[in-house]
Amino acid sequence: MFVTPTLTVNLSAIVANWKMLANTFAGDETAAVVKADAYGLGMVPVSQALAKAGCHTFFVATLEEALDLRKALPNVRILVFHGVQAGEEFAFATHKIIPVLNSREQLARWKPIAKDHVHAVSALHIDTAMGRLGLQPEDFDTLDASWLTDCRVSLIMSHLACAPDRHHPLNALQLAALTKASAKAAGIPVSFANSGGIFLSRDFHFNLARPGCSLYGIAPEDNAVNPMHQVAHWQAPILQIRATTHEQSVGYGATCIVPKGTKVATVASGYADGYHRILTNKSCAYLGAHKMPLLGRVTMDMVCFDATQVPESELKDGALVSLLGNREGITVDALADHASTIGYEIFTRIGTRVKRVYVEEAV
Amino acid sequence: MFVTPTLTVNLSAIVANWKMLANTFAGDETAAVVKADAYGLGMVPVSQALAKAGCHTFFVATLEEALDLRKALPNVRILVFHGVQAGEEFAFATHKIIPVLNSREQLARWKPIAKDHVHAVSALHIDTAMGRLGLQPEDFDTLDASWLTDCRVSLIMSHLACAPDRHHPLNALQLAALTKASAKAAGIPVSFANSGGIFLSRDFHFNLARPGCSLYGIAPEDNAVNPMHQVAHWQAPILQIRATTHEQSVGYGATCIVPKGTKVATVASGYADGYHRILTNKSCAYLGAHKMPLLGRVTMDMVCFDATQVPESELKDGALVSLLGNREGITVDALADHASTIGYEIFTRIGTRVKRVYVEEAV
Repeated sequence: MFVTPTLTVNLSAIVANWKMLANTFAGDETAAVVKADAYGLGMVPVSQALAKAGCHTFFVATLEEALDLRKALPNVRILVFHGVQAGEEFAFATHKIIPVLNSREQLARWKPIAKDHVHAVSALHIDTAMGRLGLQPEDFDTLDASWLTDCRVSLIMSHLACAPDRHHPLNALQLAALTKASAKAAGIPVSFANSGGIFLSRDFHFNLARPGCSLYGIAPEDNAVNPMHQVAHWQAPILQIRATTHEQSVGYGATCIVPKGTKVATVASGYADGYHRILTNKSCAYLGAHKMPLLGRVTMDMVCFDATQVPESELKDGALVSLLGNREGITVDALADHASTIGYEIFTRIGTRVKRVYVEEAV
Repeated sequence: MFVTPTLTVNLSAIVANWKMLANTFAGDETAAVVKADAYGLGMVPVSQALAKAGCHTFFVATLEEALDLRKALPNVRILVFHGVQAGEEFAFATHKIIPVLNSREQLARWKPIAKDHVHAVSALHIDTAMGRLGLQPEDFDTLDASWLTDCRVSLIMSHLACAPDRHHPLNALQLAALTKASAKAAGIPVSFANSGGIFLSRDFHFNLARPGCSLYGIAPEDNAVNPMHQVAHWQAPILQIRATTHEQSVGYGATCIVPKGTKVATVASGYADGYHRILTNKSCAYLGAHKMPLLGRVTMDMVCFDATQVPESELKDGALVSLLGNREGITVDALADHASTIGYEIFTRIGTRVKRVYVEEAV
């Protein structure tokens, strides 16, 4: 009944991306990062599809995300990047969620839980350059090794800061720091490679890979051909088409002047739906194979495109316009370029009025 | 149990803003625009508070929003800016939702509904310069007046393109066009003034005002003192604090170098939560009255601030940092300036992981 924008997510393409990453990765296991609702694409359906394909380990950001995922997948391994905050300890233990311990405070918080709950394991994050979360290497150096046992640390992890740039000097510095730290934690598996890390040399691979962006079709490397499949297609219906009866401005602030006879197609997605306002007077959309340049400011609930070149027979109210990810059209990375950001922010900001639709189409 | 970011919305401040706008407006009635989930603040609680304060007319963007609002408020007047799309006609009629008819197609779609349903009224949108939705004035000129009766048009509306700039020449042109059109629709009330329009001269007021942004504390006028109350406060917990043990970079891409001894506070909101990535190395947050500059790139789930100047006694895991709208801190318009956008996009993009909390605190 509702005429609504949709984001069609091809679960088969995500699975194909995961399998390709798992084949590329030289270590033991390839996990999946599904935080932030699987980058906005839908944590539960995405994770269920990956679990069915053989993925056993999932990373989320928060305990709340982990509990939602646990309901859907009772038997997989779920790790929480933010670690365990005060008051969250028992929920982690009860639902067999694994905190990524980031600090001595979190180690101290987990130790009594690990003592009392035989299934309560943890991961330990060593911060080799992000400066964000994790134990600094100097701090890990002085940590008594008994903490690893007492907190039942089952994974050592670190996070690459510049992995998409294979020539960045920080990569080697981070690798050296993690290699040194992991020697102290001998026998405990190590996770280092995010999407970009999988495409660095095998030295960076260690045991467990945890790709995120590349699962969703975002390029894992800068300045390289993107080997991933596009996975999502954002379409929105045309609300109205008009031919201008005189030269006039379009939209707020009168930032765009169009001549008489311009066909303006007004489409039902705006910045409240995550079509970034910075795309104003940039970008374009597609109606079938026909490219339509964006006209004027992106508004909260609508955006206008120039449909003058589209054949009359295809132009009608309710026709679906591709804003992102159709085969002729704009990849998530290309739309992000137009918006001066990265594909991650495009996907994670697609709003709730855009209905997620799941398909399984061979790629 | 969850350690989570929150957006505390002060319903009393929204009501106070609405009352101030209603007092400023010279026409008959002041409505409220609550589309896009009341600009991200929560359509149902915001609308309920306004209805309790005497607001009787609400504008949303889509039928789906209207139906959600109808469940919460059975007796108010609800108008849908997008108008009636094919297949939506009976839902409008059944739930007494009023479409804003934007085109001859929508007029033709509504006419049989208005004929069959005695309560099925409509509004008619005349596009005086936006170039987006609505009947062009030339088209309205040639429209047979019987359509107004047959579609039971109960409101004529138009939308100002440049209202926040009181000196913009388009304002007067739009006013002239609407004045001419409304003469043809004599006896039907007219709505023209959005937030900015309420602060233009009384010529712009007509019968029904429909403020949006100003209800939520966003400045209705450019280059003027903002008379509105701030209404929302975004807080996020500190996940970890560390003092750097050597000069180092913070975050992805190593875009920010901090000296040894810098206290970095990592906070649980990122661009997936609507803390725009473009704020990278800009903006700041507050811990109480202490200002903390932003460090490095905004990431998906976290952002880092420089807490070096914050007294040790106030720095602890779980402490709540103000990202937006505390009394000492950053207004929504100021954060929008940092992000090269407008307050509307800040509010509408605050994500679902940020829990909405409603309070009623006198302003």
